[in-house]
Amino acid sequence: MTPHLDVPAVLEQLTREEKVGLLDGSDFWRTRAVERLGVGRVVLSDGPHGLRSQPEDADHLGLLGATPSTAYPVAAATACSWDVDLLRRIGAALGREARALGVSVVLGPGVNMKRSPLCGRNFEYFSEDPLLAGELGVAVVEGVQGQGVGTSVKHFAANNQETARMSVSAEVDERTLREVYLPAFERVVTRARPWTVMCSYNRVNGEFASQHRWLLTGVLRDEWGFDGCVVSDWGAVYDRVRALAAGLDLEMPSSGGTGRDALLAALDAGALDEAEVDRAAARVLELVAKARPAAGATYDEDAHHALAREAAAESAVLLKNDGALPLDPDGGPLAVVGEFARTPRFQGGGSSRVTATRVEDALTALRRTARREIRFAPGFTLDGSGDAGALLAEAVEAARGVVAAVFLGLPDSGESEGYDRTHLRLPGEQVAVLEAVAAVAERVVVVLSNGSVVEVEPWQRHADALLEAWLPGQAGGAAVADLLLGVVTPSGKLAETIPVALEHNPTIGNFPGEHDVVRYGEGLLIGYRWYDAHGLPVAYPFGHGLSYTRFDYRDLEVEVDGSGARVSVVVTNAGDRRGKEVVQVYVSDDEASVFRPERELRAFAKVDLAPGESTRVVLPLDSRAFAFWHTGVGRWVVEPGGFTVLVGASSRDIRCRAGVRLAGERIVPPLSADSTAEQWLAHPWAASRLRGVVAGTGMEGMLDDPEAGRMVRAIPMRRLARFPGSPLDERWLAETAEAANRS
Amino acid sequence: MTPHLDVPAVLEQLTREEKVGLLDGSDFWRTRAVERLGVGRVVLSDGPHGLRSQPEDADHLGLLGATPSTAYPVAAATACSWDVDLLRRIGAALGREARALGVSVVLGPGVNMKRSPLCGRNFEYFSEDPLLAGELGVAVVEGVQGQGVGTSVKHFAANNQETARMSVSAEVDERTLREVYLPAFERVVTRARPWTVMCSYNRVNGEFASQHRWLLTGVLRDEWGFDGCVVSDWGAVYDRVRALAAGLDLEMPSSGGTGRDALLAALDAGALDEAEVDRAAARVLELVAKARPAAGATYDEDAHHALAREAAAESAVLLKNDGALPLDPDGGPLAVVGEFARTPRFQGGGSSRVTATRVEDALTALRRTARREIRFAPGFTLDGSGDAGALLAEAVEAARGVVAAVFLGLPDSGESEGYDRTHLRLPGEQVAVLEAVAAVAERVVVVLSNGSVVEVEPWQRHADALLEAWLPGQAGGAAVADLLLGVVTPSGKLAETIPVALEHNPTIGNFPGEHDVVRYGEGLLIGYRWYDAHGLPVAYPFGHGLSYTRFDYRDLEVEVDGSGARVSVVVTNAGDRRGKEVVQVYVSDDEASVFRPERELRAFAKVDLAPGESTRVVLPLDSRAFAFWHTGVGRWVVEPGGFTVLVGASSRDIRCRAGVRLAGERIVPPLSADSTAEQWLAHPWAASRLRGVVAGTGMEGMLDDPEAGRMVRAIPMRRLARFPGSPLDERWLAETAEAANRS
Repeated sequence: MTPHLDVPAVLEQLTREEKVGLLDGSDFWRTRAVERLGVGRVVLSDGPHGLRSQPEDADHLGLLGATPSTAYPVAAATACSWDVDLLRRIGAALGREARALGVSVVLGPGVNMKRSPLCGRNFEYFSEDPLLAGELGVAVVEGVQGQGVGTSVKHFAANNQETARMSVSAEVDERTLREVYLPAFERVVTRARPWTVMCSYNRVNGEFASQHRWLLTGVLRDEWGFDGCVVSDWGAVYDRVRALAAGLDLEMPSSGGTGRDALLAALDAGALDEAEVDRAAARVLELVAKARPAAGATYDEDAHHALAREAAAESAVLLKNDGALPLDPDGGPLAVVGEFARTPRFQGGGSSRVTATRVEDALTALRRTARREIRFAPGFTLDGSGDAGALLAEAVEAARGVVAAVFLGLPDSGESEGYDRTHLRLPGEQVAVLEAVAAVAERVVVVLSNGSVVEVEPWQRHADALLEAWLPGQAGGAAVADLLLGVVTPSGKLAETIPVALEHNPTIGNFPGEHDVVRYGEGLLIGYRWYDAHGLPVAYPFGHGLSYTRFDYRDLEVEVDGSGARVSVVVTNAGDRRGKEVVQVYVSDDEASVFRPERELRAFAKVDLAPGESTRVVLPLDSRAFAFWHTGVGRWVVEPGGFTVLVGASSRDIRCRAGVRLAGERIVPPLSADSTAEQWLAHPWAASRLRGVVAGTGMEGMLDDPEAGRMVRAIPMRRLARFPGSPLDERWLAETAEAANRS
Repeated sequence: MTPHLDVPAVLEQLTREEKVGLLDGSDFWRTRAVERLGVGRVVLSDGPHGLRSQPEDADHLGLLGATPSTAYPVAAATACSWDVDLLRRIGAALGREARALGVSVVLGPGVNMKRSPLCGRNFEYFSEDPLLAGELGVAVVEGVQGQGVGTSVKHFAANNQETARMSVSAEVDERTLREVYLPAFERVVTRARPWTVMCSYNRVNGEFASQHRWLLTGVLRDEWGFDGCVVSDWGAVYDRVRALAAGLDLEMPSSGGTGRDALLAALDAGALDEAEVDRAAARVLELVAKARPAAGATYDEDAHHALAREAAAESAVLLKNDGALPLDPDGGPLAVVGEFARTPRFQGGGSSRVTATRVEDALTALRRTARREIRFAPGFTLDGSGDAGALLAEAVEAARGVVAAVFLGLPDSGESEGYDRTHLRLPGEQVAVLEAVAAVAERVVVVLSNGSVVEVEPWQRHADALLEAWLPGQAGGAAVADLLLGVVTPSGKLAETIPVALEHNPTIGNFPGEHDVVRYGEGLLIGYRWYDAHGLPVAYPFGHGLSYTRFDYRDLEVEVDGSGARVSVVVTNAGDRRGKEVVQVYVSDDEASVFRPERELRAFAKVDLAPGESTRVVLPLDSRAFAFWHTGVGRWVVEPGGFTVLVGASSRDIRCRAGVRLAGERIVPPLSADSTAEQWLAHPWAASRLRGVVAGTGMEGMLDDPEAGRMVRAIPMRRLARFPGSPLDERWLAETAEAANRS
C-alpha cells in the first residue's frame, strides 16, 4: 500500500542497489517492494480478455492455473463489434475484476496488426487495420484505467508472428512502420495514456525491441510523449544494460538477479550513467504510486457474464444468409450438430487463457430458448479420436429432413500463442460431417468457432447461412443462441479479410521468414489493402457483415474542415427489425507522388436504428486521414489536391462517394548537382541559368530532342556534367543550385 | 593496332598520368591510346541486338545516328526462341559486323531480370527466369567472342527499372540476389568469360553499383573468377576513387578529365594505393591486347538479314489458335489491317536503336508470298493522329466477310529505355479497330508488335488466333508472313508470363519505389514463381507457346548422377508437320527448411522433329539445380530428401513428373545459449545434460507440459535461464553448448 508516494523524495533516499532492484520483478507477477520507505509492490496480470491472476504459488513459468474471472470474447471477436463503447465497458469490467483480485496493471490490450492469417496469436489481436485496432485499444485502456487500474499496451512493436518470436528480426521500412505497424500504438499512447507499454520479444530491423532506442525512446517518448513505464514482455530482455539505455524501465519477470547484477556492474564500470537508472526507477515509483489496490473490492459476476454475452452477440459476424436465419423459435425439430455446440471453444491458448467463472454452451442455450425439439449429435470429436464413421452417421440421422445448425471450428491445437499455423483449413472430418449433413438436411446453418480466419471454400456452398462466432468468451453459447433465434440481430463486421485461399495472402514467401529474419516485403499492403491493390477476389471482405435488417445510405456530404474534412451521411434502417450498422469511411488519394493503398479506413461509427429510423452520422477526419509518411522529409505530409471519400457497409460495399480538395503541402526537394535535368528545368530560375550555359552546345539539342530528350532529362546533372564536351562542371552546378534554392 | 602488347612491360613504362588516363575513355566510344608505347584504342559500341557504331563526329550524348548494321530481333524476342544455337549464331553475326565496323567490344548482352512488366527496358532483356537469361547470354557471348570481338555483359546488377535509374537503390536481400538477380551474370561470367562486365547505374542496398566492392570484387572476381575489365555504364560513375577501389576499371565515356583528376588527387593525398591503379590499368591493357580490329573485314548483309529473319520466326510465340492459323496461301481475299503491317515497329528506343541495313514489312511479304487478294487498311496511325473514325470505317470495309490479319502493338512512345511504362494496355484506338473488324470479319488473326508484355484481356476474345511477334528486327515482316502462311511452324515459347492484369504482378506497391529507394519485397517470387506461389491465373504462362503440330511426352527417367541428376524423356512429334518443341524441366523441392518457389526452371532443350519422329532428350541437372542460397551459412546448400522433377511444354503444362532423392547436406547450426529448448532437446548429449539439471524443478514439467510445452520449448535457453527459480545459468549454458558442439 503506497497511499501518497513522494517519488522524488523516495528516489533520493534509495540506495543504488534498491533503485536497480526496482527495475526488476520480485517474482513472476510483482515488482519489488522497498518496505523501509513504504514502496509497495505492483501486481501485474495477463488479461487482454479476462484476468489471469495467478496465486502466489504459481507454476514456474507462469502459464498454468489462475483464480476464476470472466472470460470475455477474444480481441479478434470484439474487434468485429466495431463498438468502442462496448470495448470501454469491457475494459471497465476488467478493471473492476483486477481491483477485486488485487491486480494493479492488466497486461493488455494487444494492438499488433494481423499481418498473416497464419499468426498463432491473431486471436489476441484486433485487426489488420491500424485505425480500427487503435480505436478499440483506446477504448479498452480508457475503460480499465477509468477504474484506477493500469494497462500495458502490447507488444511494441512489429510482433506479428509466433515463429522464432524471441529471435526473429522484423525487417520493415519506416513508412510501413509509421503507416501500418505503429499507428495503433500511437493512438493508444497519445489518446489513452496507458500506464505502461510492453515491449515485444522480437527484433525490429536487427535490434531487439527490448533494447531498441528509436522505438522505446525516440518514437514512444520523444514523439508521442509517453511518460509511463516501459515493461518487458515476460522474458524479452536480452542485454539488460542496453535495454535500460534504450528506454526499457522494468524487466519482468524477476531475472533472478541477472538483470540487477548486470546493471550494477555497468554502473561500477562507468558504462551506465546513474541518471538513467534514476529515470527508470522514478518511472517505476510513479507506477507504484498510481497502483493502489482496493482492499475488499468486488465485482458482480452475473453482470460481467451478461456483458460477456452482449459482447459475444455484438462480435459475431453473419457472413452469409440465404434466408435460413434467423431460425424460428417455434417449429419442427432442429438438429444441432458438432461437438463445439456442447463443448464450446471460447478462448485461445497461451498467456491469455483464463479460468472462466462459468461457461454457457450453445446446445443448452438453444434448448432453453427455442420451443423446438433439439436433436444433438456431436458429429466429431475435438481431438480427432473416436469412431468418425459412427459419429458422422449419427449426425446424418439427426439432420435428415430437418434444419441443422452445424457447429464447426478449430480445436485448441489448431491455433495458439507460441506457434503459427501452417494452413487455414478446418479439420477434414468436420467438413465431411458438414457435407454429409447438408446432403440430407432441409437447410444448414453453420456456426464457426475460431480465433483466426479459416478458409470457407469450397465447403461454404453447403451452408445456407454462415455465422462466424469467433472465440466468443464464456457466454458465447448463449449469445450464439440469441443470434440464431433472432433474439439479437447480428451487427458484427469483419475486422480482417477472409481470403479465398491462403496462397492469396500478402506474406507468401515472406512469412515466417528464415534464419531469424522476416521481411515485410508487402510493405503497406496489409489485409484489404493488399487484396484491393492486386485486384484479388476475397471470400469476405474487410468490413463485411450481414444483418437481419438492411440499411440504406444517402446524402453524403464532405466538406473541408481545417486541415481535414467533415463527413456526414444519412443512414436509414430500411428493414423491419431494429438493428445496428457500422458506417465505414474510407479515403482514397486521387493522385500522389508516392504509392498509396487504393483505400484506407479513416473513420467508422456504429449506429442503432429502429425500423424506418434515419440518422445523420457525422464523422470528422483529421489531416492524418489524408496524410502519408514522407520518407524524404521524415514526417506526415498531405499533398495538395483531390481525395475521394468512400462511405459504405464494407470495404467492398461502397454506397456513396464524394470528392474533396485539400490545400495540403507541396514538398519540393532542394535543387542540387544530383537533381535531374528535368528537376532543374522545372525550376524557372535554375532553368534559365542552365539554358544559358548549354546554349549552342550539343547538350541543348539533346535536352530537347523529341526522341532522346525524355531519357536525357532523367539524368542527374552531375552525370551530365561529366559527359564528353559538356559545358557544365560540378562546381557551377553546386553554386547554381545553392543560388536557386535561395532564389 | 596493338599486335603483341606485353602488358607487364608496358605497364612498367607508363607514367602515373598515362596509367590513370587508361582508366577513362578518350571520347564517347573509345579508350585512350598511348601512342609512344604502341597502346592503341579500344572501340566499344552499343549492340545487344545490332551494332550501333557511331561515326566519330557523333552527337554529344551518343544517342543519335549510327552506321547501318543488321537489326536482329530484340532480346525479349530471341529469348522466346529458347534456342542457344540460334543465339550463338546471332552473336557470331554481331561479332562479324563489329569487326567490319572497327568495333572491338560489343556492349551486350543485357541479362537483367524482368522484375516488373512495366520496366521500359524489358525489351532489351531476355527473361524473368535467371537460367533462361543466363543460358542465352552465354550463347551470345560465345558467339561474339568466337569472332575475336569482346562483349560487355550488362547491367551489373539489380538494374530492373528505368525510373530514377541513376539514383535509385534496389533494396534486395542476399538470397534473392543470389537466386534471382545474379545467376544469369554468374552463368555468363563463369561459362563464357566475357571480356568485360558493365556495372549498372543504380545503387544496390544503398551503394552505387559502380562503387560496390562486394559486387565488383567480392562476388564477380573473388567468387566467380572474373579476370576481365569492369567498365562503367555510360555515366554510371559517381565517385571515381571509390569506384576504382571497389573494382571498376574503366570509366566510360570520357569524364572530360574529372575522373582522372580525382584519381590523381587521391594518389597525391595517399588516399589511393598506386597498386590499385596498376591493377586496373593492367586490365585495360589486357583488353587493348585482345582487341584487334581486322582491317578490311566485311560481312554478308544478305546472310545476316536471312539470319535476322530466321531468328524472328523462331522467336514469335503463337499464344492462341482456334484453327485460324496457318492461313491458306491460296483462297479468297485477306484483309491486312493495322499500320504496323506497313510500318513495322521492329526495334526499341534508346541506346540499342540501330540504323537497319534494310527493313521488311509484313504487308509486302504477305503480298509476295500469298496467292490471295490482299486488302490493306491501316486502321489507325502510330501517333494517334488522323481521322480515327474514317480509318476504322476503312478497316471494317476491308475486313467484311473475309479473314483479317490485324497488326496491333505498342508505338515507339509506349516503351523505351529511359522511362518505365505505367500500364500494360494497347492503345485504345487499336482495340476499337480490332473489335470493329472482328464484328464483320470471317475470322481474325492478331499479330502483336511490342517489346514488353501487353494485357490481352479483355480483347483477345475477338482473336481466333494470336501471334506475339515482339519487336522482331529488320526481317520481322517476312518472318511473320512465313509464320502466318505456315511456311514456318511457330516454335517460340514465352520467356515471361503474360499476366491477366497489371495489378496481379509481383511488384505492386514496390515499383518503381519512392525517394530513390525500391524494395524487392516479393523476394524470390519473380515472374511465374509469383503467380504459382499465389495461385493466380495468368493470361499465358511462362514457357507457353503453340505449334502447328503437337508433341507428346513419355518415359521420363530421373536418376541420381553425382551430386545432381540426369533427366531424360521421350518427345514425339505427334502431328503432321515438322516442328520444334522446347522441352522444359522444372524442379520442385518436396520439403525444405526454408521457403522455396513451387517450381523453378532448371534445364531446357529445343528439339526439331519430323512428323512421327521421336527422340530421347537428355538433360543433366547439376547440384545447383536443387540448391538454395542458405543465408545461415552463406553458401549453396542442397538439403537431403526428395525433389520432384517436372517436365512439360510450359510452366503450367507439365506432362510428366518423377521424384528423386538426393543425399544432400543437413545443416545443423551449432548449439548456443541462444538456441531454443527445442534445439537443445534435439541434441542427445545436450538434452541429457539439460534434463539432469532441470530434473525435479518446475521447469521440467513446463518443458513437457502437453498444453504449454510447445510454447516453452520455443524459448531460447538464455531466456529460460533468466526466469524466476530457474536452475540454469548463462555460464552453464555456454559451457554445455560448447561441449555439446565438440561431442
